[in-house]
Amino acid sequence: MLPLISQQPRPDLLQNLHINTEISIPVLVDFVRNEISKVGFKKVVLGLSGGIDSALSCYIAAQAMGAENVLALKLPYRASSSDSLLHADLIIEDLGIRSETIEITEMVEPFFTKSADISPLRKGNVMSRARMICIYDRSAADGALVIGTSNKTELLLGYGTIFGDLASAVNPIGDLYKTQVRQMSRAIGVPAPIIDKPPSADLVPDQTDEDDFGFSYAEVDQLLYLLIDERYTPQEVMNTGFAPDFVNRVARMVQRAHYKRTMPVIPKISGRSINHDFRYLRDWGS
Amino acid sequence: MLPLISQQPRPDLLQNLHINTEISIPVLVDFVRNEISKVGFKKVVLGLSGGIDSALSCYIAAQAMGAENVLALKLPYRASSSDSLLHADLIIEDLGIRSETIEITEMVEPFFTKSADISPLRKGNVMSRARMICIYDRSAADGALVIGTSNKTELLLGYGTIFGDLASAVNPIGDLYKTQVRQMSRAIGVPAPIIDKPPSADLVPDQTDEDDFGFSYAEVDQLLYLLIDERYTPQEVMNTGFAPDFVNRVARMVQRAHYKRTMPVIPKISGRSINHDFRYLRDWGS
Repeated sequence: MLPLISQQPRPDLLQNLHINTEISIPVLVDFVRNEISKVGFKKVVLGLSGGIDSALSCYIAAQAMGAENVLALKLPYRASSSDSLLHADLIIEDLGIRSETIEITEMVEPFFTKSADISPLRKGNVMSRARMICIYDRSAADGALVIGTSNKTELLLGYGTIFGDLASAVNPIGDLYKTQVRQMSRAIGVPAPIIDKPPSADLVPDQTDEDDFGFSYAEVDQLLYLLIDERYTPQEVMNTGFAPDFVNRVARMVQRAHYKRTMPVIPKISGRSINHDFRYLRDWGS
Repeated sequence: MLPLISQQPRPDLLQNLHINTEISIPVLVDFVRNEISKVGFKKVVLGLSGGIDSALSCYIAAQAMGAENVLALKLPYRASSSDSLLHADLIIEDLGIRSETIEITEMVEPFFTKSADISPLRKGNVMSRARMICIYDRSAADGALVIGTSNKTELLLGYGTIFGDLASAVNPIGDLYKTQVRQMSRAIGVPAPIIDKPPSADLVPDQTDEDDFGFSYAEVDQLLYLLIDERYTPQEVMNTGFAPDFVNRVARMVQRAHYKRTMPVIPKISGRSINHDFRYLRDWGS
């Protein structure tokens, strides 16, 4: 196999991929506090998988709203790794936040049994959406808004379940690439075992994200940063040293995942249509 | 109780609330065909509740893609009205589309059992989201895109479950008020019993939408049309004859439901951020 990056791009091209955590952490914390408070809420809820993304979102949420106002849900399936639950507990104890465990096995197994030949991918989507059901139900019961846990890399690549883990009210880490999530997690105090383990969706034992992709987060974040943030064309990115196959494949992934980043498409036939010319945020009419 | 409308607004103010179905039906049909085809799909799937909204979406989808390319799912809960299934069957037979039945009872009961004191509203949301899981799983299994079934009135009022019945890829009826859905359903050939029955979410026996609201669709559609499409201020609408309490209540409902019509909020800290300045639709990079 050819290398994905034949020659490392000049460091100055990528310098802004490295973030200043001293500036960024307070920006994210204030943003979350402001968004939650301005719609009249005090509390938040999120699913804690034991992975780094939900860990970072949780630390930001606790700084924003106070530990007593954060409810963390552990939502294991019977095949979930036991490390996942231990790592979630590390966070819960370190922050002193409230937590609940809701086993999703009983909700999803009846569906799996009925669906002959259901693939691991389809099973993973069902599990992700069953977790969303639990989180949103607790949101309604507790008067708590849902905090998202999807980073920019996975949002761009479409590595998440629409109406599952991609569902939230406020997503503090949606503008952070995975490598930036790691950088910020170190700065904010996420326990080291969570930062150091290989990222995994934990749907199949020993599965890792990077095995699924066939490239590393370090590689794809550099490519995405140049394509998206710096607006390089695919050809320009290739000129900096990225393999054409890698560039084309990733550009296609971003394109094919657009539907996960947009609202349902509505044909416009009236004078003012939802998601066309009626797309105000929460402060319309106030 | 005071009347909601003290004096009927002048007919010319509301004339555009009446749509020309001869023009509009082909527009919606072509739009659906184009949106589905341009992303390389031929087939669609939707949940058929037996109500008028999913019926109209289904007729539009069948005209757009051909009856053989439409899969209708009946997704009953044990407390669903038997009329709902009969009405879904009327549509399936009339159009000659494929159908499947997936009972959601076994998926949702384990969750209800675990959740002490779960309210009817929370139960309804869980059921709506369990149906979404079934529809999206069949979407993945069949290579079929999901057709939405939410009208403009319920989208504006927030009378739907986020990540539940509000979830879809393409929503043909999202720019039609409920009264326009009725008008168009008559024109396109939806069976009369479906058009004539009182609209109901069918979550509780004999519940109707209009009882839930305390106003009729005919009344609220006129009000919403003036507020949204014609950009009247609340005061201007009151001047045409609408009761102040009714206007204020509906404006508040629209405002409070904005979160159901937007993607998760992401704090912008980079040069180009998802849902801020990176919000291309499916054709980015092509």
